[in-house]
Amino acid sequence: MSKNSSNIMALAPNTSNKRETVCIFGTGDFGRALGHKMIQAGYPVVFGSRSTQTSSLIPKDAEVLSHAEAAQKAAIIIIAIQRQHYNFLTSLAEILHGKVLVDVSNNLKINQYPESNAEYLAQLVPGAKVVKAFNTVSAWALQSGTLDASRQVFVCGDDMEAKQMVMDIVRALGLTPLDQGSLLAAQEIENYPLRLFPMWKFPILLSLGLAAFFFFYCLTRDVIYPYVYENKNFLFFIAISIPNRICPILALILLALVYLPGVLAAIIQLYRGTKSRRFPDWLDKWMLCRKQLGLVALAFASLHVLYTLVIPIRLFVRWRISSRIISQALNNKTEPLNNTNAWLSDSYLALGILGFFLFVLLGITSLPSVSNNVNWREFRFVQSKLGYLTLILCTAHTLVYGGNRFLSPSSYRWYLPNAYMLSLIVPCIVLVVKFVLIFPCLDKPLTRIRQGWERNPQHSE
Amino acid sequence: MSKNSSNIMALAPNTSNKRETVCIFGTGDFGRALGHKMIQAGYPVVFGSRSTQTSSLIPKDAEVLSHAEAAQKAAIIIIAIQRQHYNFLTSLAEILHGKVLVDVSNNLKINQYPESNAEYLAQLVPGAKVVKAFNTVSAWALQSGTLDASRQVFVCGDDMEAKQMVMDIVRALGLTPLDQGSLLAAQEIENYPLRLFPMWKFPILLSLGLAAFFFFYCLTRDVIYPYVYENKNFLFFIAISIPNRICPILALILLALVYLPGVLAAIIQLYRGTKSRRFPDWLDKWMLCRKQLGLVALAFASLHVLYTLVIPIRLFVRWRISSRIISQALNNKTEPLNNTNAWLSDSYLALGILGFFLFVLLGITSLPSVSNNVNWREFRFVQSKLGYLTLILCTAHTLVYGGNRFLSPSSYRWYLPNAYMLSLIVPCIVLVVKFVLIFPCLDKPLTRIRQGWERNPQHSE
Amino acid sequence: MSKNSSNIMALAPNTSNKRETVCIFGTGDFGRALGHKMIQAGYPVVFGSRSTQTSSLIPKDAEVLSHAEAAQKAAIIIIAIQRQHYNFLTSLAEILHGKVLVDVSNNLKINQYPESNAEYLAQLVPGAKVVKAFNTVSAWALQSGTLDASRQVFVCGDDMEAKQMVMDIVRALGLTPLDQGSLLAAQEIENYPLRLFPMWKFPILLSLGLAAFFFFYCLTRDVIYPYVYENKNFLFFIAISIPNRICPILALILLALVYLPGVLAAIIQLYRGTKSRRFPDWLDKWMLCRKQLGLVALAFASLHVLYTLVIPIRLFVRWRISSRIISQALNNKTEPLNNTNAWLSDSYLALGILGFFLFVLLGITSLPSVSNNVNWREFRFVQSKLGYLTLILCTAHTLVYGGNRFLSPSSYRWYLPNAYMLSLIVPCIVLVVKFVLIFPCLDKPLTRIRQGWERNPQHSE
Repeated sequence: MSKNSSNIMALAPNTSNKRETVCIFGTGDFGRALGHKMIQAGYPVVFGSRSTQTSSLIPKDAEVLSHAEAAQKAAIIIIAIQRQHYNFLTSLAEILHGKVLVDVSNNLKINQYPESNAEYLAQLVPGAKVVKAFNTVSAWALQSGTLDASRQVFVCGDDMEAKQMVMDIVRALGLTPLDQGSLLAAQEIENYPLRLFPMWKFPILLSLGLAAFFFFYCLTRDVIYPYVYENKNFLFFIAISIPNRICPILALILLALVYLPGVLAAIIQLYRGTKSRRFPDWLDKWMLCRKQLGLVALAFASLHVLYTLVIPIRLFVRWRISSRIISQALNNKTEPLNNTNAWLSDSYLALGILGFFLFVLLGITSLPSVSNNVNWREFRFVQSKLGYLTLILCTAHTLVYGGNRFLSPSSYRWYLPNAYMLSLIVPCIVLVVKFVLIFPCLDKPLTRIRQGWERNPQHSE
Repeated sequence: MSKNSSNIMALAPNTSNKRETVCIFGTGDFGRALGHKMIQAGYPVVFGSRSTQTSSLIPKDAEVLSHAEAAQKAAIIIIAIQRQHYNFLTSLAEILHGKVLVDVSNNLKINQYPESNAEYLAQLVPGAKVVKAFNTVSAWALQSGTLDASRQVFVCGDDMEAKQMVMDIVRALGLTPLDQGSLLAAQEIENYPLRLFPMWKFPILLSLGLAAFFFFYCLTRDVIYPYVYENKNFLFFIAISIPNRICPILALILLALVYLPGVLAAIIQLYRGTKSRRFPDWLDKWMLCRKQLGLVALAFASLHVLYTLVIPIRLFVRWRISSRIISQALNNKTEPLNNTNAWLSDSYLALGILGFFLFVLLGITSLPSVSNNVNWREFRFVQSKLGYLTLILCTAHTLVYGGNRFLSPSSYRWYLPNAYMLSLIVPCIVLVVKFVLIFPCLDKPLTRIRQGWERNPQHSE
Repeated sequence: MSKNSSNIMALAPNTSNKRETVCIFGTGDFGRALGHKMIQAGYPVVFGSRSTQTSSLIPKDAEVLSHAEAAQKAAIIIIAIQRQHYNFLTSLAEILHGKVLVDVSNNLKINQYPESNAEYLAQLVPGAKVVKAFNTVSAWALQSGTLDASRQVFVCGDDMEAKQMVMDIVRALGLTPLDQGSLLAAQEIENYPLRLFPMWKFPILLSLGLAAFFFFYCLTRDVIYPYVYENKNFLFFIAISIPNRICPILALILLALVYLPGVLAAIIQLYRGTKSRRFPDWLDKWMLCRKQLGLVALAFASLHVLYTLVIPIRLFVRWRISSRIISQALNNKTEPLNNTNAWLSDSYLALGILGFFLFVLLGITSLPSVSNNVNWREFRFVQSKLGYLTLILCTAHTLVYGGNRFLSPSSYRWYLPNAYMLSLIVPCIVLVVKFVLIFPCLDKPLTRIRQGWERNPQHSE
């Protein structure tokens, strides 16, 4: 429904069976937006404000009263004012006794105050039932009706019934309530909107670190070395050539790091002979950010594809090809096709294409709406079987790309091997260990351990 | 669950605690599909029909009775017949008194009748509680079980309890009810399924208009001019060369238009010194279709990437390159690498790749399921910070592409500048104004205005 | 909320209004994970176990008692033990009388037992109200809080009230309950997590079959023929050249097969003169897997795009181009641009780009979260109008690619036509029939039949 529909829907005339009145303290942006939305959903709304003059911004069908008068009209009072101004509520303690107070406030910093705003409110008005809700929704989203950002509303509170009442309102507004337990969860909920991709921090920092390392490594080999020894100025390589070395390397390493913790976990389980002991904390955290690691790897792989596909348009490449052709023409010689090289060139391209294709498939299935529509077995099939196939294809792509360059001495400038060789270490380790784990003598006990609901914990493999 | 599962689930034998019977008037496609689905969900269903002969199409476990008999068996009656045939319901007024009538009808045109079908129904049977629902769901989707299209069911009605009963049924069928308020919303809800991308109309019309303008502009410069002055026939440019000029221009302009309203809003807020007055209507509408504008821009950017990447496969390009090489070979001269041009060529490609990459990221985060999983701060970070970075990269891409062509007189055929120069106007304005707005002397008051819940409205910056 | 938040939320101290206690039989992975999640959501949890020693793995705030004691404390008992160990429950029959037993078990194979685990449980404890639920959720997902896989919980049971209680718990845990009807649905629900993309089986098998056929076809024409007649070794074509023939062919054929059933259905409806008779079973099934067919086609189209874009990087292609240029240079002749060929080359590339672009758009709109946000008319507009446009563009792309090669005798090696010609058969049939169906003399009766709620079924067109 578009925004302008709200006007028509605002009034609910001969409703034989009205919803309960809701009171909103505060006529700021958020209070008004929430009030507007509630009127649309059929709730009579009364605003509590210091000045009872109705401004043109306040929804027409809402009353504006003093705080005390407004509070008396409703069982649920939404406190849409800032924490700094909460103290005046103590004077209303009597009227607020037994009422449901909904704390919608947010802070400016994570853990800004020792206790959450909702708990602070509960201390100020001990007789009221405080519920935390709505803090993850923005006034803009409510007003415009285009809830592009989250529809999820985290709700917590100590009183079950009060919480249920608030969750019903949330649902009536077309949002999704998520019960987060007692009021102790309020701190967490208040911190939530202040978070900035916490799960992405590690993968992104890791990839930035690796990218910096490989950048200087390639700079040394590909720009400084030819400048020193051949006096050639290839500084413009830092625009495309070097990024196109870094991206595939990072993609491959990060992809291997997605599967490394699973392999480590299997080794730990085999060693311990039980799955019921907790993994070390770092491994647990690592396993939880595998999806993010994989998506960062996919981002680098996509950049690699784009960088590779523009190669033939690059002026430098065109110049190099044409000068090679001209020199051949002037020397009157035509090279025959080197069949081995044609094989190698086509194979590594084909492996890369198939690997990237599967990689994108993996990425698509990790979209929330897609993964919501597959069952657990299908999800694991894609993420594990297809994932390993992707890793195998991408590793093979790099190996074949290396081709007969591995042993060529020209690959070792200043004793530094080609960067792609370094990128092969982690994936090869993962694949070899995984391959070993597939052998029945290891796979069977592992499967038993993983199914073993009742397996004797003293027993060790 | 797959479709063929419905047969097994149809019968619910020893249910100690049955759901309430539902009556459906009309045995057409939609009535039958709905009945089938309800039986699956455990509702006893009775059909009301003119002819009480059960056809093979009617779900086995449903009874078919006369309208009057069927209505008496249930508290909820779903009116799955067309508006034209509603009048016979007046004769049943007594039986329908106090019952919940669910209007599921749709029209063929937007605002076909002065009042909505549901309101018309309420007038015909004043004693009944009319609820509008299910009109957004198709019979095919219900039947096949593959609810590819929307699972959202808009519900409205004047009686809260009746609405709640209908919403419970909606939920039991695995659909998502969305309460839209009183029966006045029925018109809106009936128009909803008839709409064809209303939010996309403006962005698409705008881009078509711009595309037409730039098409003729480029045609004049790139096809007609060489034909007139050099007698060269480049008409085949309209297949790839000209689209590949238009696409990046439109992508850049539309992307800039996504960020222009935000900049304008900031200026207006600074000027007014308050954020509580409404923006002009056109600005409000513009802000609401920013997402669509951005996605259309992304579409053009993607086309530009594809058009660019096929360049080396084009016969014309291959011919041009090879004839240039041959003439160099015949003249016995090898051009040395122009380092500046290599830099320019690689830089504009790299900028384009990075810009496009971020642009695609923006597009992915605007997918509903992704934006549902980020909090407001993350959403704004991506859409604002990354968005501006994308705009900067894409503008830089165009500027570097221009390179030293800006001043070359050959770029001005018939006094017409190169088309890409025109495309730079809007993005440069947006970036310059945004840059100015970042200065503390403007940014500080603006931030204060935007946070200012209580700021004095008389006070003006 | 991240995983580590669970600790803070675990305790709910002064809750004036507690949720009902839930009992969990079994302290295995799944039982513990579920218990943990429920404590978070505010449910007091008591575990029933053979050994009442609390292990460190069991959530701190949960009690561990004997089965009998635990069962007495709660109205809902979750049976988180394997089917093989169900028989001990008969000894508790008296205590379990009237309680809600939730069967969460899964099997290892589809239809492993004659009756579902839930039905077996209901037989063992006839006095209890058995509800099937939670079997689609994995312990890992519950524990880690990252519900990447499905949030959907299928629920079924014969007792409405018991089912409602379980669905409330499901909702409180932040999951989405889907009522599947009576306990007869349990078999289906237990099979669900064991399924592996059942809708994809046919499209994938079909495309594998077609791929194999076209692989050998192209191998014969492009590798064996030149080896036999010209003694050229083009075996390396199987890396890129042949896949790049197979992919577009499959994409085109599969895309046409998406629209063929719709055309067949129209013919059947026209012939029968009614839409109320069921289509033959194969047609129904075909129609249900159109989305999957289309997505497989899109996958092949994407591979085709990637294979095509790497063409200029291939060593073989570079060698062929440079040797052609060198021979021209040595023969001192420059070919003029063939305008017709430039037209053909640019047109088929442009058609392919536009076709692929629309194809990707179709793919994006088939993402669940996108299709959930469009109404039925918009969905049909995209899938039907845009779909046909895609088919037309892709067919035209292939026709123009063929260009003047259709009649050239060199295209017929061993009397085998070029593979792309074979791929044109199905799409051309679909487009021609669809074109015929658009004529008013056929379109009008068809539209009438499709709208015809009341059309006389005896009457035949």
